Amino acid sequence: MASSSEGSGDALLPDFPRGPLQAYRARASFSWKELALFLEGEDMLRLKKTIFSALEDDPLFARPGGGDLPMEKYRELNFLRCRWVFEHDLLRVEDMLQSPLKVRALVNCLGMYDWSLAAKFFLHMLVFGSAIYNSGSERHFKYIPKIFNMEIFGCFALTELSHGTNTKAIRTTAHYDPTTEEFIIHSPDFEAAKFWVGNMGKTATHAVVFAQLHTPGGGCHGLHAFVVQIRDPKTLLPMPGVMVGDIGKKLGQNGLDNGFAMFHQVRIPRQDLLNRAGDVTPEGTYVTPFKQWRLLPYLAAAYALDHFSKSLFLDLAELQQGWLGKDTSARQAELGREIHALASASKPLASWTAQRGIQECREACGGHGYLAMNRLGHLRDDNDPNCTYEGDNNVLLQQTSNYLLSLLTRRTQGGAHCKSPLKTVDFLEAYPDILGQRFEVPSLEDCLDSSVPLAAYEWLVCYLLRESDQKLNQEKRSGSNDFEARNNCQVYYCRSLALAFLELTVVRRFHEHTHQPSVPPPLRAVLRRLSALYGLWSLSQHTALLYRGGYFSGEQAGKMIETAILDLCSQLKDDAVALVDVIAPPDFVLDSPIGRADGELYKNLWGTILQEGKVLERASWWPQFSANKPVIGSSKSKL
Amino acid sequence: MASSSEGSGDALLPDFPRGPLQAYRARASFSWKELALFLEGEDMLRLKKTIFSALEDDPLFARPGGGDLPMEKYRELNFLRCRWVFEHDLLRVEDMLQSPLKVRALVNCLGMYDWSLAAKFFLHMLVFGSAIYNSGSERHFKYIPKIFNMEIFGCFALTELSHGTNTKAIRTTAHYDPTTEEFIIHSPDFEAAKFWVGNMGKTATHAVVFAQLHTPGGGCHGLHAFVVQIRDPKTLLPMPGVMVGDIGKKLGQNGLDNGFAMFHQVRIPRQDLLNRAGDVTPEGTYVTPFKQWRLLPYLAAAYALDHFSKSLFLDLAELQQGWLGKDTSARQAELGREIHALASASKPLASWTAQRGIQECREACGGHGYLAMNRLGHLRDDNDPNCTYEGDNNVLLQQTSNYLLSLLTRRTQGGAHCKSPLKTVDFLEAYPDILGQRFEVPSLEDCLDSSVPLAAYEWLVCYLLRESDQKLNQEKRSGSNDFEARNNCQVYYCRSLALAFLELTVVRRFHEHTHQPSVPPPLRAVLRRLSALYGLWSLSQHTALLYRGGYFSGEQAGKMIETAILDLCSQLKDDAVALVDVIAPPDFVLDSPIGRADGELYKNLWGTILQEGKVLERASWWPQFSANKPVIGSSKSKL
Repeated sequence: MASSSEGSGDALLPDFPRGPLQAYRARASFSWKELALFLEGEDMLRLKKTIFSALEDDPLFARPGGGDLPMEKYRELNFLRCRWVFEHDLLRVEDMLQSPLKVRALVNCLGMYDWSLAAKFFLHMLVFGSAIYNSGSERHFKYIPKIFNMEIFGCFALTELSHGTNTKAIRTTAHYDPTTEEFIIHSPDFEAAKFWVGNMGKTATHAVVFAQLHTPGGGCHGLHAFVVQIRDPKTLLPMPGVMVGDIGKKLGQNGLDNGFAMFHQVRIPRQDLLNRAGDVTPEGTYVTPFKQWRLLPYLAAAYALDHFSKSLFLDLAELQQGWLGKDTSARQAELGREIHALASASKPLASWTAQRGIQECREACGGHGYLAMNRLGHLRDDNDPNCTYEGDNNVLLQQTSNYLLSLLTRRTQGGAHCKSPLKTVDFLEAYPDILGQRFEVPSLEDCLDSSVPLAAYEWLVCYLLRESDQKLNQEKRSGSNDFEARNNCQVYYCRSLALAFLELTVVRRFHEHTHQPSVPPPLRAVLRRLSALYGLWSLSQHTALLYRGGYFSGEQAGKMIETAILDLCSQLKDDAVALVDVIAPPDFVLDSPIGRADGELYKNLWGTILQEGKVLERASWWPQFSANKPVIGSSKSKL
Repeated sequence: MASSSEGSGDALLPDFPRGPLQAYRARASFSWKELALFLEGEDMLRLKKTIFSALEDDPLFARPGGGDLPMEKYRELNFLRCRWVFEHDLLRVEDMLQSPLKVRALVNCLGMYDWSLAAKFFLHMLVFGSAIYNSGSERHFKYIPKIFNMEIFGCFALTELSHGTNTKAIRTTAHYDPTTEEFIIHSPDFEAAKFWVGNMGKTATHAVVFAQLHTPGGGCHGLHAFVVQIRDPKTLLPMPGVMVGDIGKKLGQNGLDNGFAMFHQVRIPRQDLLNRAGDVTPEGTYVTPFKQWRLLPYLAAAYALDHFSKSLFLDLAELQQGWLGKDTSARQAELGREIHALASASKPLASWTAQRGIQECREACGGHGYLAMNRLGHLRDDNDPNCTYEGDNNVLLQQTSNYLLSLLTRRTQGGAHCKSPLKTVDFLEAYPDILGQRFEVPSLEDCLDSSVPLAAYEWLVCYLLRESDQKLNQEKRSGSNDFEARNNCQVYYCRSLALAFLELTVVRRFHEHTHQPSVPPPLRAVLRRLSALYGLWSLSQHTALLYRGGYFSGEQAGKMIETAILDLCSQLKDDAVALVDVIAPPDFVLDSPIGRADGELYKNLWGTILQEGKVLERASWWPQFSANKPVIGSSKSKL
């Protein structure tokens, strides 16, 4: 579509190169140039274009061919690129105050190129710089020009090794010595080391350090911020009393040097208390969320899915034997179809559960989960292709729903029995009766067994089967072709049907396994709790459908399921470590300092960090900081 | 707890090292050794222990210190480790048939050490090997001993560059030539190259290749499998007519050499058709799921969240100005609280949405999304720390819910007004009225505007606020201390409250932005659709609560929201590319062959793959395969 603004926008917003997307672009109901101008305005578009072009035109920003850069080389490049930003004077104080959106645009543009670069720049200029600027004291303004010409380089040292978010638990101290009018900054032990601080690893010369302020006789006055010099800007060597180093490789953003520091009785002048920085410490009481609530359902899922995987593997071996024995019976063919339907939905369920579980562990471990050495990134990356190979998960789920829909058709047309070799669909015999059932659990105690989700899942599969069938017929009647009809049914019907059916089967097999008489009595309680937790937690993802179809009604049903899940988590809390012990691979195989069986996570972390090369050594490219200072705006004419 | 089996299990299941976890282990309600024995049985535990100990005892399996191995070194090591498994004869044919769970245990143990190793072994022995063994023909059994002694190395070549899962679309051909009794295997073009095949990159000598079978005059007989020799086992150089190479670095599993191959009129004997391998091609019609349905809501989210981020950034600038101007008014303090509440929930919402969106893109791109060069892994890894730094998402959400709960307390206690500088909580003035509202949308058409989710969100926030408040009071009355009370309320109440409040604010601001009179008329439709889609899609994640609290009742409400989402996706389908064009960074910045603006993804992929070093070259360590053949079981005595 033509528009009046298109002409003027052409230099600013040139057309995209021709190619296969041209046909799709032509279908748009609007002019993309008009929308870009409306959303951003010409000024902002011009700024972004200027920044992007400047990056693209400078070989310093060429993407490395042939794989990843070594970490030290990457950090050097990232530093040089950060210095380049200063030389091009892309951000001036006037801009920061007058056009805050330009600050955002610059950081976003740098970030789209590489978030390591945006983070390095942002932490120095805007986090370290603002902390000092916002202190409101003229006595700190001496630092501002030094920040702009990179005479010093800053970082923001809040978090400690064993305390991340919880600012009340921070243990670095600042004792006031009135005789010398100094503060004495001190780290009581290794666990109180400042940790994860961006720019601290190799480049920062100054840190805004948060510490508990103590005065003689006056006790503790809470958390305050101090400017502490940590390295000599001329040599990048650490200042006396400061042990400072690099925490090592992370899952991403490896151009940024995150670091640690311990202070041994480091004295700083009284004036370097930042009197207004208290603003950054938030108010209120903090509660670290119940991490075991986040992870216990995944632990239960590991047990339930492992049992299912074993049992399906044995089913498959039976099928294989039949093939090799040239079994051509109807039962063998039916067994093949049933196993195909189960296997097609197992990979999606297992790979997605694993992906979510690993991410939840990663986040529950905070920053430490993001350290490469702890290998949660490896686990996640190695599991990820399971979502794709041997068939995209969503495509595979159609196999399962097609199988179930064909059973329904058979049942309706011929009145044939729904009996399968592995009995996973036998409950469909009672299809109409099951559809008439409702959630009727008298008390919370009755809800704490996997028979409750089992019954609910049988209803859910019947309901989704009926709905999918109706939706497909309705789509076909309305003139959709087979492709469209299946497509429109897939998202909310067939996909949920396939997952619900598999979850039902997993819950059923684990329920039967944990309720069989041969379970040793001391193990019954814990196994049944796992079974109930997995069943209820999985089921709770379908609560909307349970209400919509009328299986649940009233507030109590949903609340009871939630309360039961929390109760089971609470009952399993004390068993959690032992449950992990049962299934954990040996330390050597796990190879994760925070995951070792001895539980000494901080000792193990330090051990591994200090084993890495050049942890405490200054960067080989230190003269790039110390000698070659940027001349602000020296390259500005190029823009 | 003591148990009779513990004594015998001690050698098999030694105690864990002492450490901080000891106290937690002591709390367990059961003996972990008894559970391990019950679940696995002594035989299986012994097998696993044997495998793990063998790995740990051999320096070949030492974990590399000091960061990641170069890719070629890693692939060599992975090959040597795979050969080691054969030398130790950990899996015999008898075992495969008699104790299938032992096969599973071996693959799992190797996988827990490194999934690259398990995949390499599994693809050769069990996928390639089974395809040949299951063909049921004695004429193919000659390959079996060669598979076991690694005289040949196998891969399974099904997927092609432009067709992954959809087996019907495979375009490699096998024309039968009756004069020579040969099949001629041929790749019609680059897009039909076999692609992503594990073991094919550097090691495989033979491939099970899937191709469309053609006979002279008889047309196409559909997909069949053929054994094709692709490299000379003596030199690992490619066979004539075969172009074979390595597809390069992936997000994970880099010990496995995934490869590509093109066949130029390669002749193989008639006998190398695998007559039974048709079993692996599944039945039924396939539908590639509507990928734009998966991604369009995230595109809408990108627009809505970007607008919100801009507006919040301006609010923050206003706050900053107030600070610098020493504004000590009540309004300035209130503005600080409001922005703190919004910002605390923004990072969780934005970082989780981005994480899910990137993963959805990764999966929607299939295997190509898993290739490192396409950089979806970089995006995911660089976004991931946003879930953690400046505070764990779950901890931050408490800030927001505390703010809202304090407003409710103020309102109840003093009857004070709920008016805030940015007006985000002004709707709470009508708290009791809003709680009485119900979903009343007469028709689907009326549902296609963001005013619908806006109203629903206002109800939802009021409902969650009431519920959170009640739950907190109930917990406190029942004797929980403050920590427990907040903890028990967090999971299902306060966390949802904070997210719902922020989503409401994002929807409201984007609704107002897209409905303002200054929007150019040609852009109105598309912007309002984006606004409605984001609002309804976000809202649909809370459907269970909407039913539970009675805002929704009956089947139609839930169905209408789902239909509206699909309708909006369908309406936005043709605008999708142009909407991406508006916000996309330049190709240079994006640096992703499948993401370039020209849309020539296959050309761009090939261009990048062939730029990598040593793509077509045989591995430098080729004599490790060709000369040093494993003697099966030669090292078995060690176990």
